[in-house]
Amino acid sequence: MSFRVTIADVAREAGVHPSTVSRALNPNTRGLVTQAVATRVAEAADRLGWRPSAVAAGLRTRKSRTIGILVPDLVNPVFPPIVQAAEARLAEAGYVAILANTNTDAAREALLIERMSGHLVDGIMLASAASGSTSLELCAALRIPVVLINRRLPDARVPVVVNDDRRGMAMAVNHLLALGHRCIGHVAGPAGVSTAADRQAGFLAALAAAGLAHDPVPIVSADAYTAAAGRRAMEQLLAAHRCSAVAVANDMLCLGVYDALAAAGLRVGVDISVTGFNDMPFVERISPALTTIRIQHAEMGRQAAEILLAEMTSLNPAPRDIVLEPQLVIRSSSAPATAMMLARSCSDLVRN
Amino acid sequence: MSFRVTIADVAREAGVHPSTVSRALNPNTRGLVTQAVATRVAEAADRLGWRPSAVAAGLRTRKSRTIGILVPDLVNPVFPPIVQAAEARLAEAGYVAILANTNTDAAREALLIERMSGHLVDGIMLASAASGSTSLELCAALRIPVVLINRRLPDARVPVVVNDDRRGMAMAVNHLLALGHRCIGHVAGPAGVSTAADRQAGFLAALAAAGLAHDPVPIVSADAYTAAAGRRAMEQLLAAHRCSAVAVANDMLCLGVYDALAAAGLRVGVDISVTGFNDMPFVERISPALTTIRIQHAEMGRQAAEILLAEMTSLNPAPRDIVLEPQLVIRSSSAPATAMMLARSCSDLVRN
Repeated sequence: MSFRVTIADVAREAGVHPSTVSRALNPNTRGLVTQAVATRVAEAADRLGWRPSAVAAGLRTRKSRTIGILVPDLVNPVFPPIVQAAEARLAEAGYVAILANTNTDAAREALLIERMSGHLVDGIMLASAASGSTSLELCAALRIPVVLINRRLPDARVPVVVNDDRRGMAMAVNHLLALGHRCIGHVAGPAGVSTAADRQAGFLAALAAAGLAHDPVPIVSADAYTAAAGRRAMEQLLAAHRCSAVAVANDMLCLGVYDALAAAGLRVGVDISVTGFNDMPFVERISPALTTIRIQHAEMGRQAAEILLAEMTSLNPAPRDIVLEPQLVIRSSSAPATAMMLARSCSDLVRN
Repeated sequence: MSFRVTIADVAREAGVHPSTVSRALNPNTRGLVTQAVATRVAEAADRLGWRPSAVAAGLRTRKSRTIGILVPDLVNPVFPPIVQAAEARLAEAGYVAILANTNTDAAREALLIERMSGHLVDGIMLASAASGSTSLELCAALRIPVVLINRRLPDARVPVVVNDDRRGMAMAVNHLLALGHRCIGHVAGPAGVSTAADRQAGFLAALAAAGLAHDPVPIVSADAYTAAAGRRAMEQLLAAHRCSAVAVANDMLCLGVYDALAAAGLRVGVDISVTGFNDMPFVERISPALTTIRIQHAEMGRQAAEILLAEMTSLNPAPRDIVLEPQLVIRSSSAPATAMMLARSCSDLVRN
């Protein structure tokens, strides 16, 4: 952890008792010491670079040594590796993590934060951020340090640990382009979630950079990051476009995409290529194994824990945005485009 | 929820104000009412069948309306469906659930219970029970209602919601026997966990009932319910026995069993049959899809929530043990034994 100037340090520097320093530095109690002492203490504090503690700054002093982690969906196995890494780092500092499922419901998210704040948690990791969320305002009002993980919120003045979603999706698209595909569809994530918007933007940017554009654009948004929603979206995509490949916004959606393709008699990795995002547990075992964008699960959890630990000890840390680099993982769901595929698809391709 | 006689009911019956009833029924405050009133209230309470509240019984009165759920491993996807069902039932009653991961560590489990108990939770669901656990004693000392789910503990005087593990494993073995297999191995769960012991007992009982016995017994215990441990155990089993089928103690272990078999050049569902237990999410998508024993995930969560709600409102509920019936789900990992398989295996079969 970062070096921290304590009250005790200031006391030694000023040549007074630590409790005198406390009184002098706390605006509420400065009147209890003489002006001379107050000045001496203030100058010592300045020299050492002491920063106000949580108490003096008016933040809630919490001693629960417990962190709350809010996830949007317990069923998505991408979260456990992130949470476990956060837990490990937190445990080193004597903290435990409790987890709660918002079920993608903003009202539930707010309720959980309120419940957790009642003596429960010293800080919160929010993996469930979506538009319409009032959680940041709520945490600020409750004076609970919060860090966003995996998803961002616009104008958030809190630390964020996310993946480079645009770049990751561009990697997937470029992989498919390198395999010779030209008509590439996109199953996007749900509206209001940053990963959906950023990955869709990455998809479009990569196609534009390759000089490819489609009219109409072969994108269908899934209404949730679930297998069922992925299936419905893929069915719509199949009905409207003839793509030889589809870059999907996340791996849970891919499970449903696989189902839709099977129902349509299309073999993944043979008749059509599929890429996902996250590299969640189990996708290496489905058939065919999924080509996807691996995010740094453990690093995300660890960094978020690190940030929260710093925020909770209130060393006035500068808010940090951490963007983690993802990585393409090639498996069997993506394969070279065949001449037959190219002939059958792309009737709506407009070359720039 | 069960009908409940409240303080308000007794007040109406006795013709006094509810606060008078409270004082009269609480031993600590009975002196604040006259003997005549105390008697009238007591008789009214008897007539209606009122039972002491949590306060009067000396249990901690909690108003957090929060339940803690402890799981042994966040990575095992069998827990989310159980937890979600519990959450749904709890939400109807205005409770939220917070989840914590014990990481199969008894010390961590105890620490989490202590943290949760500090104003945090009104009740606890324990899915992580294992021998050496002091959690039941801890919950009793902290006066927190607790219910065991999925796993039992010997001599536990708390409600339990489990599956009929013996019967479930017997179903799996009988399925393999019906397919013609005779040399059936068992990858058992870790020592100290009730599901491991009960499923192993079910395995042995089913073979004995079929008049089959092996010397040496083809059982290897995995040291944890993880894929890696399942792989190691299957490797040991392969080295020591020639089985044409293996009944595995749970689905996570099966993932590792699949890996060991692939490494040994054995095709699941062709050269060797495999069955699992739990029907956890994703096993229907692996290759080949896993034949397994489906447990009633949602019913388990719902029943556990129901029990805990009753315990927390302290209607003096009788402790309940609920044993849920499992169901065989046949997929592609199990297939009929071929003559060649039977010839190659079973050299160690001793017929009774």
